[in-house]
Amino acid sequence: MGKEISQAVIRRMPRYYRYLGELLDEGVERISSNELSARMNVTASQIRQDLNNFGGFGQQGYGYNVKYLYEEIGKIMGLNEQHNIIVIGAGNLGQALANYMKFEKLGFVIVGIFDINPALKGKVVRGNQITMLDELDDFVANHKVDIAALTMPKENAADVANRLVQLGIKAIWNFAHVDLELLDQDVVVENVHLSDSLMQLSYNIVKSR
Amino acid sequence: MGKEISQAVIRRMPRYYRYLGELLDEGVERISSNELSARMNVTASQIRQDLNNFGGFGQQGYGYNVKYLYEEIGKIMGLNEQHNIIVIGAGNLGQALANYMKFEKLGFVIVGIFDINPALKGKVVRGNQITMLDELDDFVANHKVDIAALTMPKENAADVANRLVQLGIKAIWNFAHVDLELLDQDVVVENVHLSDSLMQLSYNIVKSR
Repeated sequence: MGKEISQAVIRRMPRYYRYLGELLDEGVERISSNELSARMNVTASQIRQDLNNFGGFGQQGYGYNVKYLYEEIGKIMGLNEQHNIIVIGAGNLGQALANYMKFEKLGFVIVGIFDINPALKGKVVRGNQITMLDELDDFVANHKVDIAALTMPKENAADVANRLVQLGIKAIWNFAHVDLELLDQDVVVENVHLSDSLMQLSYNIVKSR
Repeated sequence: MGKEISQAVIRRMPRYYRYLGELLDEGVERISSNELSARMNVTASQIRQDLNNFGGFGQQGYGYNVKYLYEEIGKIMGLNEQHNIIVIGAGNLGQALANYMKFEKLGFVIVGIFDINPALKGKVVRGNQITMLDELDDFVANHKVDIAALTMPKENAADVANRLVQLGIKAIWNFAHVDLELLDQDVVVENVHLSDSLMQLSYNIVKSR
């Protein structure tokens, strides 16, 4: 993918993918940007602009072929391959992630879940035994791991993240409430900061009064 | 708050708040926008622009008073008041939210947790008994509820959300993977779509190769 596409466009792609998936489920074969616009509550020109970043896909007078567009967006988002995930932190949030069946349908497969609490050792979460963190190196050496999800307290998150990076993991899905400063700048990080999202909610509550 | 401030600016505020909180913990009393810039890895001009939306707070040659700025951003984000939350869906994710102590420190207090699964009835999650969803109306009539967190399957999310809106709840923190179409347009919605975040991660993985 030579061309640099803004992260704002990329952030909108999963929503297109979701709506197209629903259309597919409904048996819709093609859709105009105007119809898609009405359904998604964004302007048709926004849709055309967004999709033009990837070369278009639409045909004048025909609209979009739903299945084709769905598959192409899937490829753009890397969903045509399997991504293996390990979860570091087997608390409620870690176990929630490990239990989400939906991720698997998108090609994201949880292959391991780790913790430092011996009381959790061996407990099975959707087919994966909770493993102690000191076995991480061995595990990563023997499994293909594409993404590490960090659902642990922020105090140790940076250390663990850098250990993961040294083990060759190239992507981190960070739920710890801290900005990770990684040794390797090429590692991809996606943050999910739940408190930030709550604060944005409360800002909008106060503002809307 | 008369002036309309862009959501992009608002989205950056929690991060300022977090860094200023850390500075406070370290005993730092004042900081220049250049120092804050180096620490946060954003430009000093971005910081000044962002904060100028709210009237500035900085003083030429002095910088920012850390405690004052921390408290002012807190007020802007509505953190000077308590927000009561109910969680709808007592699966792993719902229980994870109900267990987060950090939310409480920010003024977000979980006051109830609901499910439809009778096997969960009465189980206590950090002081809150899991309550059956058919008791929701009674509960909301007798408690102050500011925010409902939806951590339930997407199939029922829209129905439950509109029931909550009819009960007078003005804010929804939506983890269900669906766009809620609400009867009342004034209700504030903040979405946390975990699959979308995973897709953005895999896009960046593929792109970085």
